[in-house]
Amino acid sequence: MGSARVIFDRWDGRYAARMAGVRSSAVRDLFAAASRPDVISLSGGMPDVRRVPHEAVTRATRDAMRHDGPSALQYGGSEGRYALRETIVGLMGESGVRLGPDDIIVTAGAQQGLDLLARVFLDPGDVVIAEGPTYVGALQAFSVYQPDIHCIPMDEDGMRVDLLEEELRRLGPKGAKFIYTIPNFQNPAGVTLVPERRRRLLELAREYDIPVVEDDPYGRLRYEGGHILPLRALDPDVIYLGTFSKILAPGLRLGWMSAPKPILARVLLAKQAADLCGSAFSQSVAEHYMTGTGWRRVLADLTATYGARRDAMLAALGEFFPDDVTWTHPEGGFFVWVTLPAHLDTKALLAEAVEHGVTFVPGSDFFPDGRGANCMRLAFCYESPEQITEGVRRLAEVCEDKLELYRAFVAAGAVPAAARVEEGVLR
Amino acid sequence: MGSARVIFDRWDGRYAARMAGVRSSAVRDLFAAASRPDVISLSGGMPDVRRVPHEAVTRATRDAMRHDGPSALQYGGSEGRYALRETIVGLMGESGVRLGPDDIIVTAGAQQGLDLLARVFLDPGDVVIAEGPTYVGALQAFSVYQPDIHCIPMDEDGMRVDLLEEELRRLGPKGAKFIYTIPNFQNPAGVTLVPERRRRLLELAREYDIPVVEDDPYGRLRYEGGHILPLRALDPDVIYLGTFSKILAPGLRLGWMSAPKPILARVLLAKQAADLCGSAFSQSVAEHYMTGTGWRRVLADLTATYGARRDAMLAALGEFFPDDVTWTHPEGGFFVWVTLPAHLDTKALLAEAVEHGVTFVPGSDFFPDGRGANCMRLAFCYESPEQITEGVRRLAEVCEDKLELYRAFVAAGAVPAAARVEEGVLR
Repeated sequence: MGSARVIFDRWDGRYAARMAGVRSSAVRDLFAAASRPDVISLSGGMPDVRRVPHEAVTRATRDAMRHDGPSALQYGGSEGRYALRETIVGLMGESGVRLGPDDIIVTAGAQQGLDLLARVFLDPGDVVIAEGPTYVGALQAFSVYQPDIHCIPMDEDGMRVDLLEEELRRLGPKGAKFIYTIPNFQNPAGVTLVPERRRRLLELAREYDIPVVEDDPYGRLRYEGGHILPLRALDPDVIYLGTFSKILAPGLRLGWMSAPKPILARVLLAKQAADLCGSAFSQSVAEHYMTGTGWRRVLADLTATYGARRDAMLAALGEFFPDDVTWTHPEGGFFVWVTLPAHLDTKALLAEAVEHGVTFVPGSDFFPDGRGANCMRLAFCYESPEQITEGVRRLAEVCEDKLELYRAFVAAGAVPAAARVEEGVLR
Repeated sequence: MGSARVIFDRWDGRYAARMAGVRSSAVRDLFAAASRPDVISLSGGMPDVRRVPHEAVTRATRDAMRHDGPSALQYGGSEGRYALRETIVGLMGESGVRLGPDDIIVTAGAQQGLDLLARVFLDPGDVVIAEGPTYVGALQAFSVYQPDIHCIPMDEDGMRVDLLEEELRRLGPKGAKFIYTIPNFQNPAGVTLVPERRRRLLELAREYDIPVVEDDPYGRLRYEGGHILPLRALDPDVIYLGTFSKILAPGLRLGWMSAPKPILARVLLAKQAADLCGSAFSQSVAEHYMTGTGWRRVLADLTATYGARRDAMLAALGEFFPDDVTWTHPEGGFFVWVTLPAHLDTKALLAEAVEHGVTFVPGSDFFPDGRGANCMRLAFCYESPEQITEGVRRLAEVCEDKLELYRAFVAAGAVPAAARVEEGVLR
């Protein structure tokens, strides 16, 4: 098993129609390849949990057992433990969002939040608006409920709200079930939605009466520039998804959703059906881990570490890649989006790259419709600056052959007329 | 929030059609009431985690951090940690089922297994066959995918396979997406499917080409009689759901599914969409908790404890309830199913019972169609024998008024002709 290839079998034709559209994630399938010790992983967005002190987790567990006793081992309320929701209120407050524990549901990572929202809102054929490219896990979660996902291009300032407006005009009022956005250090593009566009996006959402889903896993991982207020801080009707995966560790599978209470009540029902309740154990451990200030030192260390790795990646891209390749400049988060000339297909490069000891994620994985074929996502979160530099060097080497061929084509005037140059694929 | 009441709101009409059929669980809503210290809870099926040694959990966490290091804090494979799947192979072997780690996916409790199976198999209107009454969490999980649930009555020997055969004949080959059964100490009925009926059920499933889903949370909690082989031991095509909630603790939210590989591959895709992967942290802690033999002593203690509580409940029912009330005799598990005369409605008794300091779950919660109104589920897993005796005494007191009225009706020949006497509601 391991990889999620589908085997044809005697139950064929018995599965639900929704399963036809559910894709495996290339990102997840790559985890296996990336674990070879000689391979430099620029693929998975894995936080560097090697920097989370193990004793702190053991101590938090001991405290959880001592103070919360049996309740940390028992079933709990589907909305999550009150004390952890209070912790989340504090975190949100630091980001500029005021809410109370009753405005929050604890989820199994932000991924479960995406699944529950899709479950609550989406009938087959419903329209969802997202950035293009967008988070592959969101595409997976939504696809189960068979929506039609419309992607809005981005540039270095985030989602092109002018193009969003055009799309909304085409669809009309309530023409989409929600607008899904990752405003900070977008996954995979690495770009950040600027404040004036945040305001405009919210105006448009109100005008066309469409809920906004703000996914903010990386908000606290900023390496330059000042904090930008979340959409939720500007409009209490915004549905907000947060996660402990980047503050503490993904292995606890803890995230949260805040939403207007009527929506939250339905999400709660959906969560009961999905898993009864979250892990009281993980929640109690997280509660105690987040007590005191130790976690802030760990997070500051992580942020400094990721920042240095980003710098290494940007420097290496500048050093090893030629002028006909472009990339984004993330102010935080985990990812850089690299765009090769339009005729190149990064999926075709991947096997060769793995052979050369480096992995990335092909751009087309981040679109519902195969766009982004000439792009790739590079993650700088996990490897050391030296490894990142070497990884980018290897990758440039793999690309160079194809790029030379491409340049020869261009020089010969042989570039096909139907060049797949897509606006907003961040070229 | 807390309770999952749905609030009407400005997003009405925007939710997915599937949400109309998703019910809140009275069982979960009762957790709140049951937490009042003066109330004796005979409602929730909560394992007695007070008997799980906290030091063992802290020690397991320390070992997890020491031996598994960062991997216990990281994202993991969607199928679950290999070492934990090896532990599960061992557990299944002890129950008489031979399989390998690759036949298993770790889930967030067995509840997620139910959700994933429904997600993979059910289109709206598809038929699912279940016992009636059946597990309320299964009704919840399935209802999201809008199936038509057909309930097969039970008697003291479990599902009436003669009535199953009639139903299958009506539906025809492949006429249902799956047959869902809890063969051991059924929730809520407390009855066990006898060996000859297990074989017959499997014959019928093969004849009509319908997958069987065996939900076995209580298999190891037997207080009398010998072990009966799981359906999965008799037929490798059976889909089996297990859980650590009753062996270790529900707070870790760990269960598992074994299924034929083609089905498992699709369940894996569905799981990726739902939450990317389970908690590596919980899994690693469980791995280390299950190392050595300490957990066997804890489980033996729990089994002895639950057995004594069952005895107390059966004795109290015999002492305090009159002849026109009947109940089942569970050989294991957590629940006794009590049937009052047909005209009584236990839902109407519940508020009064809570006032008298005792809770139960009304029988109609365990049917998709309001049947079972004269029944109730009593749980003996959580309270002490003394509390159970007192709880049953209080409950009998609450029922006695209604029963007297009922007897007067009968004596006067005034029982309505349309008596709601249902075959197989275990009267």
